[in-house]
Amino acid sequence: MRHAVIMAGGAGVRLWPLSRKDRPKQLLRLFEGKSLLRRSYERVAALLPPERIGVITNQTHLPIVAEELPELPVDNLLGEPVGRDTSNAVGMAAAVVARRDPDAVIGIFTADHIISPLDRFREAVERAYQAAEDYPDALVTMGIKPTRADTNYGYVRRGERISDRLFKVKNFTEKPDAATATEYLASGEYYWNSGMFAWRADTILDQLEKHLPQSYDAICEIADAWSTERRQQKLESLYPTLTKISIDFAVMERAERVLVVEMDCHWIDVGSWPALESVIQADGDRNVSTGGNAIHLGSRGNIVASQEDHLIATIGVDDLVIVHSPDATLVCGKRDAHRIKELVDNIRENSDEKYL
Amino acid sequence: MRHAVIMAGGAGVRLWPLSRKDRPKQLLRLFEGKSLLRRSYERVAALLPPERIGVITNQTHLPIVAEELPELPVDNLLGEPVGRDTSNAVGMAAAVVARRDPDAVIGIFTADHIISPLDRFREAVERAYQAAEDYPDALVTMGIKPTRADTNYGYVRRGERISDRLFKVKNFTEKPDAATATEYLASGEYYWNSGMFAWRADTILDQLEKHLPQSYDAICEIADAWSTERRQQKLESLYPTLTKISIDFAVMERAERVLVVEMDCHWIDVGSWPALESVIQADGDRNVSTGGNAIHLGSRGNIVASQEDHLIATIGVDDLVIVHSPDATLVCGKRDAHRIKELVDNIRENSDEKYL
Repeated sequence: MRHAVIMAGGAGVRLWPLSRKDRPKQLLRLFEGKSLLRRSYERVAALLPPERIGVITNQTHLPIVAEELPELPVDNLLGEPVGRDTSNAVGMAAAVVARRDPDAVIGIFTADHIISPLDRFREAVERAYQAAEDYPDALVTMGIKPTRADTNYGYVRRGERISDRLFKVKNFTEKPDAATATEYLASGEYYWNSGMFAWRADTILDQLEKHLPQSYDAICEIADAWSTERRQQKLESLYPTLTKISIDFAVMERAERVLVVEMDCHWIDVGSWPALESVIQADGDRNVSTGGNAIHLGSRGNIVASQEDHLIATIGVDDLVIVHSPDATLVCGKRDAHRIKELVDNIRENSDEKYL
Repeated sequence: MRHAVIMAGGAGVRLWPLSRKDRPKQLLRLFEGKSLLRRSYERVAALLPPERIGVITNQTHLPIVAEELPELPVDNLLGEPVGRDTSNAVGMAAAVVARRDPDAVIGIFTADHIISPLDRFREAVERAYQAAEDYPDALVTMGIKPTRADTNYGYVRRGERISDRLFKVKNFTEKPDAATATEYLASGEYYWNSGMFAWRADTILDQLEKHLPQSYDAICEIADAWSTERRQQKLESLYPTLTKISIDFAVMERAERVLVVEMDCHWIDVGSWPALESVIQADGDRNVSTGGNAIHLGSRGNIVASQEDHLIATIGVDDLVIVHSPDATLVCGKRDAHRIKELVDNIRENSDEKYL
């Protein structure tokens, strides 16, 4: 049967001061009052019943995830004691699901993107599941049809066409420079590497056994203990010892049989404050705001994020990011938004832990 | 006996969003955790016992003033049902005090200035009281020795010298233009009109009877009812009918015998956010902050006001005013700080009353 696992392990420091240790990016209700995780869940829930949807996240976030997705059986929430990148997350999810359903086909979804329109998303996901069923020894990745020469994404190059919008993968590439990205776009052969996949649980586990045997052994040991009282002890003794490595590096780039399904969607990584400009309608002065209230007097091009009914008022300021949270406020030039991580490091060293 | 009345009637909309209907400027704890009112009280309390110090303020602020100045007898807190400018405030205070002490000499002090050093302040105030005692038919004003050609203040021109740092007043002037202010400064004959005075209660009341008879009659009627259950009824029926006019316009500029005592002090009107730069020590990047916490990364010349332990963090922004309050945040170019009143009007019309 088809299953889905949503990867919700990120921290999202670049969305400080809204994203925090205790409330990572995917739990922020930035858009229409819904979190990115909730939106991701609803996209998938249009295809599968909640019993077959799971989330893998840091174990400290399990309660808040359970609150956000009350439809999900508690058993479908998988907690990692520490983050060990996507290889181990998808591996552990596959091992746990395989013990409940040996014929499971798993779709892997991300929790930090905005994707539209929904019908095209669903159509591509259906096609990916179908490919994983039709080609049981293949790993299927979903590739976003690029709309610009973006240098912030990895790319997937398609090879031989198998059927409508399904191709063999020729190769994966790192984030390209601008000239290379322009070539990729012009060629029509490249997709953005979306981090969404479909595969049989036993297939991805076989591949992990081959390419990442230490992880495979630990993951199987954890999964065997999953329904026993030894689960937590196994997780805590084994999981932290695993190598941090992405599934792209560890498996996808080395596996023999990898397919790509084309997904022709708007796909926005809401990883930083300036990304909100791609998602939220601006006012006549190019100011974008989310949450709370905003009033601008002679101000242009600002990105304003507040909470509940807190008011952010500006006079005569341009191109700022202004974010209110109950215990911390950020005011940052839009072009300096990449320095938020540096700021958070600075706070960690010089100020109070509670602001992290 | 000597008495003191602190005028604490202002609203201070230019310090929004910290100053509000319910917590006006003089109650904000902007400096070293003390409000301007508290600091004003402590300056005066070095000279007089609390029993002879009073505050006149909007009656809605009486509870918060009582909390701020717990030393004061409740009977010394005078509430105005509406603001009717300084003529009526000092008049009502004089009438109430005169009924308790017919020989009262009253010093009038402001609640929205920072004044230093204290010894010179006290020396000038002593001299003003003494002048009001020595010349019982005179009104005594305290004039600040100007240190720059400021166009934001009214000036008092001194005439004939009476004794050390005590002069007859030649005339009062409106806020001058820059050229005139420069002349004033060069002449050495002008003082800034501080809004601080000393006079016998019966003398100021005689002058009000002569120059503002309607106010005089109403004030006396209110004062006669002060210790009865009719106080509030009289206040509410009479006080709102009085003409709004300053004591400078109504009396000082027309009285025959007006003296000025020279006060050689730093005297800062904390009427707007940029004024904080004159009061608070800046960091190495010229950032000034008060209340709460602040972290600046590549930011210069900002004025940051927070509360309790709220953190304001900036990256790469210059010359902004950033003010946090629990339900509203202001981000404003320093040069646009004069538009805060316009902003508040805008909020009154387009947003929620609760932000006022």
